[in-house]
Amino acid sequence: MIDVLVDGLRDVREQPAWTPMPEEVKARLRSPPPREGLGLEAVWAELQRWVLPYRLGNVHPRFWARVMGTGTATGALAGLVAAAMNNNLSGLESSAVHVEAQVIEWLKGLMGFPASASGLLTSGCSLANLVGLEVARDSVDGGVKAEGLQSVPGRLVGYASEEAHSSVARAFTVLGLGNGSLRRIPVDAEFRMDLGALERAIDADLRAGLRPFCVVGSAGTVNTGSTDPLETLAEIARERRLVFHVDAAFGAWAKLSPRLAGQVRGLERADSIAFDLHKWGAVPYGVGCVLVRDAEAHRRAFQASAGYLAPYPRGVSAVEYAGHELGPELSRPFRALGPWMAFQEHGLDRLREAVEKNVEQAGRVAARIRREAELELTAPVPLNVVTFRYRGRELSDGQLDALNAEVVMRIQESGVAVPSTTRLRGHTVVRLAIVNHRSLDEDLDLLVDAVLETGRAVAREGG
Amino acid sequence: MIDVLVDGLRDVREQPAWTPMPEEVKARLRSPPPREGLGLEAVWAELQRWVLPYRLGNVHPRFWARVMGTGTATGALAGLVAAAMNNNLSGLESSAVHVEAQVIEWLKGLMGFPASASGLLTSGCSLANLVGLEVARDSVDGGVKAEGLQSVPGRLVGYASEEAHSSVARAFTVLGLGNGSLRRIPVDAEFRMDLGALERAIDADLRAGLRPFCVVGSAGTVNTGSTDPLETLAEIARERRLVFHVDAAFGAWAKLSPRLAGQVRGLERADSIAFDLHKWGAVPYGVGCVLVRDAEAHRRAFQASAGYLAPYPRGVSAVEYAGHELGPELSRPFRALGPWMAFQEHGLDRLREAVEKNVEQAGRVAARIRREAELELTAPVPLNVVTFRYRGRELSDGQLDALNAEVVMRIQESGVAVPSTTRLRGHTVVRLAIVNHRSLDEDLDLLVDAVLETGRAVAREGG
Repeated sequence: MIDVLVDGLRDVREQPAWTPMPEEVKARLRSPPPREGLGLEAVWAELQRWVLPYRLGNVHPRFWARVMGTGTATGALAGLVAAAMNNNLSGLESSAVHVEAQVIEWLKGLMGFPASASGLLTSGCSLANLVGLEVARDSVDGGVKAEGLQSVPGRLVGYASEEAHSSVARAFTVLGLGNGSLRRIPVDAEFRMDLGALERAIDADLRAGLRPFCVVGSAGTVNTGSTDPLETLAEIARERRLVFHVDAAFGAWAKLSPRLAGQVRGLERADSIAFDLHKWGAVPYGVGCVLVRDAEAHRRAFQASAGYLAPYPRGVSAVEYAGHELGPELSRPFRALGPWMAFQEHGLDRLREAVEKNVEQAGRVAARIRREAELELTAPVPLNVVTFRYRGRELSDGQLDALNAEVVMRIQESGVAVPSTTRLRGHTVVRLAIVNHRSLDEDLDLLVDAVLETGRAVAREGG
Repeated sequence: MIDVLVDGLRDVREQPAWTPMPEEVKARLRSPPPREGLGLEAVWAELQRWVLPYRLGNVHPRFWARVMGTGTATGALAGLVAAAMNNNLSGLESSAVHVEAQVIEWLKGLMGFPASASGLLTSGCSLANLVGLEVARDSVDGGVKAEGLQSVPGRLVGYASEEAHSSVARAFTVLGLGNGSLRRIPVDAEFRMDLGALERAIDADLRAGLRPFCVVGSAGTVNTGSTDPLETLAEIARERRLVFHVDAAFGAWAKLSPRLAGQVRGLERADSIAFDLHKWGAVPYGVGCVLVRDAEAHRRAFQASAGYLAPYPRGVSAVEYAGHELGPELSRPFRALGPWMAFQEHGLDRLREAVEKNVEQAGRVAARIRREAELELTAPVPLNVVTFRYRGRELSDGQLDALNAEVVMRIQESGVAVPSTTRLRGHTVVRLAIVNHRSLDEDLDLLVDAVLETGRAVAREGG
């Protein structure tokens, strides 16, 4: 089994980047569970025949859709060890708890957070944002946790840029604040929050009797990799007495590199930050992290008590790091093992080099796109995200939207590469997010070639 | 590596059930991350020396603290495969998505939910409860998602028994409803919700102008394994127009057994149910599930849109099951693989037998406790949870609390077994939750012997 999986990772370059699932396979994956067991051999055979060949493709060197980590063989082994240990980090003492505490210490150090801050590993940045924003919500009015939002006066409103990730708005809905209570602030030409517009929005809400309580900065937006002016945002938050949370899903990792850290300057001044480890942290899904400057506020927001959870001075219930009091989960899998192994195996220097290499590759692709007359770069490329479109000649904007969507679908279906799309200033564009230590410059050239060829073909078809 | 881990699981009976961590080990797990990588061999050596020996102990045949699954070798392999595939189930087409959809279909069938219902795998029951209750909250008033709780009239209140799990109250705080908006209804002598008291509480809230919106039943409470009268609760919910959610963390698995299913009759009438797979589902942490009868309400509560998430008719973004639109996570690990492998390897009959065996063992322990003059059974044992205390002779209730806590700590520290404690009707009691296919009758006898011996020793020392 190990051989098949490790060989599969080694030879991934020879496989298609993605393969559509035949209807036969889909049908097979609709059968009911057996009454009598099939045994492990038979299940492994099923897995190899119906499941492994149709993996998503993010382990492939030419997968750049969304913002996805590519995984490593060590990550696979961490998955094995974690599942064999089967730890539950819910306030019971074991080495796993100390490993999580250690990883949190490492991450606080890397992100410039003080030793007194607290942190938690979550399944990803969505829940990390949720935790940060729940702490923000409950810090503003102690009555919210006890008696609910309907019992506190003045509607709570927060601010994020138009380009902020969908998980920020979703956190607002989960937390009962409502989608509409997250004011979406316009961005400048570089897709960074317009701070004049932010100040005006806060003033308008104050005049309307609302209660502005937080501002959410983005460090590395998903659409373009842009980062809000975090230092000035920190100043505004301080002056306005707003909690300052930063969604730094992948942008946080710029902190590792002296060359890139300037882009996210101010991140270390946030009250809380959320970021992923399954992107540039070189671990498999799903591991995210939230760091909270005020450890006491963090614990106050999530602490719960129950007879069966009572701590004791000795034995299993004598635990130093109580992650189940820092987020919405009680039972928690051993997420820290992946980062603990990856950081030690590779070392910080190699993690940094992987980030720097991806950013260089993005710059190189952007330069090539600028040189190609049929292509148009649609946003600056400060980090690892490249957006562009095939524009050909004499095509209307409406035609271009459909054409570029078709180009991306065809390239995905061909198995050559997996770019994705997004919408920028009303246009559909091709998008690459390079979070992939397996990608070579040639891989990216191959993609640009494919966009040119496919773009011409679709344009010829009249599309 | 496989050998060490699989041998470790095979020989687990020879190891202590739990081992306190020496200070030296704790200190080691405080060192900073290396600049230069150590390589995989060195990390594996570190892992074997500092981490593996101090696992939590829930893989051991004599671990019965909280309510914890014990894990299997196949579960470990599922962890390996899932991490090697490194799927992200966030609305992108791959076999993993179809495997999750298949597992959800299986679970709907087992729980008696209709084919039209929807479901989602979460990290555990805490988030499953959160999802169910968010759907409930947003079903009541469409304005909540858009404009927040502060914009809708009438405070929303819900109901659960005093014995309901802490994650239900926590879901209320996360959702902005507030702890205090979950009315805790007293229980009867069998720790089941007192339905007269429920009706009175609803009436009182209505008179006070509040908006009762949901009632949460428990199927298998963590303290005693009791189950609320679900059929009558379903009736009350229907008459009162309340959403009926059931927290069935481990009780749901009684559905597998014709002999036990009567205990959770009515579960299939709930609007939503939450339960765990990492308990009786024979998979490692963390996998829980929420099923929602009204699939459209489920999707409406969580659906989000963003340019980079746009679906397409072909290619990677053409996905049939969109789990990221059914819960708070966007990126989602491949949780379904463990259950997919376990259900097929073992078959439903063997899963059922494991549940029935644990329930029989609980009954057998209870019978022995009833026979022992120095012990007192402190609650009925309808399922797999046994609570009791050492009462000795002529000790006051206050002395007994301290004594029983001390007994549990000593037994945990000895490595013989891991029971836990809870509080029942104001008393500290010893508690066993048997969710462990490795446990033998002898293991449980050994625990009872240890409680008797340790109880006598502590009593002799003066309590």
